[in-house]
Amino acid sequence: MIYPQIIGSSLISQDAKNRVELLQSNMSSPMGAYTSNSKGHNYVRQSIARYIEERDGPAVNADWNNIYLCNGASEAVRTSFKLLLRDQKDGVMVPIPQYPLYSALLALDGGTMVKYYLDEEKNWGLDTNDIHKRIKNAKDLGINLRGIVVINPGNPTGNVLNRGDIEDIIRICHENEIVICADEVYQSNIYTDTAPFISFRKVLAEMGDPYSESVELISMHSVSKGLQGECGLRGGYFETVNFDPFASDMIYKLKSIELCSNTIGQVAAQLMVDPPKAGRESDACVEQFTKERDSIFQGMQKRAGLLSDTFNSMVNTKCTKIEGAMYAFPEVIFSPKALKKAEKEQVPADFMYCMDMVEQTGIMTVPGSGFG
Amino acid sequence: MIYPQIIGSSLISQDAKNRVELLQSNMSSPMGAYTSNSKGHNYVRQSIARYIEERDGPAVNADWNNIYLCNGASEAVRTSFKLLLRDQKDGVMVPIPQYPLYSALLALDGGTMVKYYLDEEKNWGLDTNDIHKRIKNAKDLGINLRGIVVINPGNPTGNVLNRGDIEDIIRICHENEIVICADEVYQSNIYTDTAPFISFRKVLAEMGDPYSESVELISMHSVSKGLQGECGLRGGYFETVNFDPFASDMIYKLKSIELCSNTIGQVAAQLMVDPPKAGRESDACVEQFTKERDSIFQGMQKRAGLLSDTFNSMVNTKCTKIEGAMYAFPEVIFSPKALKKAEKEQVPADFMYCMDMVEQTGIMTVPGSGFG
Repeated sequence: MIYPQIIGSSLISQDAKNRVELLQSNMSSPMGAYTSNSKGHNYVRQSIARYIEERDGPAVNADWNNIYLCNGASEAVRTSFKLLLRDQKDGVMVPIPQYPLYSALLALDGGTMVKYYLDEEKNWGLDTNDIHKRIKNAKDLGINLRGIVVINPGNPTGNVLNRGDIEDIIRICHENEIVICADEVYQSNIYTDTAPFISFRKVLAEMGDPYSESVELISMHSVSKGLQGECGLRGGYFETVNFDPFASDMIYKLKSIELCSNTIGQVAAQLMVDPPKAGRESDACVEQFTKERDSIFQGMQKRAGLLSDTFNSMVNTKCTKIEGAMYAFPEVIFSPKALKKAEKEQVPADFMYCMDMVEQTGIMTVPGSGFG
Repeated sequence: MIYPQIIGSSLISQDAKNRVELLQSNMSSPMGAYTSNSKGHNYVRQSIARYIEERDGPAVNADWNNIYLCNGASEAVRTSFKLLLRDQKDGVMVPIPQYPLYSALLALDGGTMVKYYLDEEKNWGLDTNDIHKRIKNAKDLGINLRGIVVINPGNPTGNVLNRGDIEDIIRICHENEIVICADEVYQSNIYTDTAPFISFRKVLAEMGDPYSESVELISMHSVSKGLQGECGLRGGYFETVNFDPFASDMIYKLKSIELCSNTIGQVAAQLMVDPPKAGRESDACVEQFTKERDSIFQGMQKRAGLLSDTFNSMVNTKCTKIEGAMYAFPEVIFSPKALKKAEKEQVPADFMYCMDMVEQTGIMTVPGSGFG
């Protein structure tokens, strides 16, 4: 509930009050209560479905019944892996370099990690031949490949996949009956015109038969990244596409054990997918929102350019262009002397370099070897 | 951040503003960010340690380093089971009747559930002989008993364990090297003077050698129950006692995968364990808080009494006295005719009864067979 004196106060803008009333009138339980559906508030899930349809165009029909709210995207990955993995023989393909959440959850859930390598020469794009080879190897080892993780825009690589790469993944998954786990949490962090974000959802729908009605996809998004970055609220969602009703029931069961994801995070997700818009909110509100959003975006875009340009202007350092996300993954070419020192100290050379850097300059970096 | 115009406004009481400032000055990261420690905000954990020490008296020293914030107590159970269970041979003892979260998580994590039965004749207290027998049976079957769940106050039984029962459990766990998982989320929901809440933490500390320094305990609490009932916020914590540093490191690792629990839930936990108090907050604030808290409490207490009294005044129905939590677990004695009808319809008699009740009266109940 909102205290009447606050609703009546001039301190809160009329637009904010309207949004509160919109949410309250559309939610069947108050913020302090469990949501009546363990998947999350229906209204939030309906808002997300509209967002996906607006983002992806006419080929996509998003069904809000297949959208699940969660405590951040990490929980979405955990739920997905819980669903996919039955025993050690079940495998999930993970890109290298990877965000270490994936290897950690695979270790925890007792599945097998099947690595595939992103191609630095292709700006950390996909190497389809490598994927084919790894699938064959995994099958030869008796591993049941159940899913493939694709992080787009890339974490920690900062690349954005092109449509051709996405189509290739979809074809491979169709052929091998593999579920696509698309980590798309950086979809709003896109810094160049030449590499726009294209969702797996959109490409899948637009590819038509036989893909659009058969390839299984889980797409994840979060309020932790983008331009709001409200990571402490732990708000996120995932959408499933082409899932068998039995699998959907199992997800619902998994969600029911958790009762519901936190309601403030759910509301944050609603605000992310349904920002102020002309006509509904006042001009002043839309203008202020646009200004703040653009200012945050331009700051990130500028820093992304500055970072890769600076790396590339340095001796023995190079870096692919940061197209998206919040990361640079530069290559540092070590001198034979440095390599020898690292060998002597029995640490990876990049680890030694990062430790030296923080000690000498105070700049914190993470060694690339931590990402595989 | 708090907008200056709100902090400056007379709509928010000075006490509330002071609390915001207290929290802000003691938290190293803002609400929208991940907490700097995956275990949760240090200040919140320190507040919880103080709460435990004040609740349990001089024998208890709570170390805030062993306190972990989580998205509700359900997550605490998940983390505990993840820690305890290695394979199907590992077992956890669960009381029957039980809150079904436990059986669900055991099934999910691939452990074995070892049931022990609460004694309705003893107001759903413990039957130590039964526990001894079940432990022996489990060992004979080659099960490695790793933990025992104790729900106090009881869910769904509404009983409160006495000190003798708690001491027995501690002795049994010492003898058999079993970790105690104490679900104490209803610790503020105590309705009689004759059955006060006594924490496992307190009894363990007061028992002294050899128990106090060796028996491993996880105690869980939540903002979802008690007198605030803010279950939608998903705030909770657990404390570990006598854990090996290696086990503590593993919990920290598990928490790190989740990054952190939602920050609003963390603040809700702080407010629960550190309510307005005389001297710090104004008299008006303390008075209002006490009035609201007492009013909620008395409402619950009255309904608890009304419910068990009414059941006991009915023909063929009896119910133990509701001492705590939010539940009544009455016994309904069915006529031979009713039993025959249920048998014919191939459903449990209590299921049939509950379905008939909701259809004829609109009153929703849960059949006891759902709790084992």
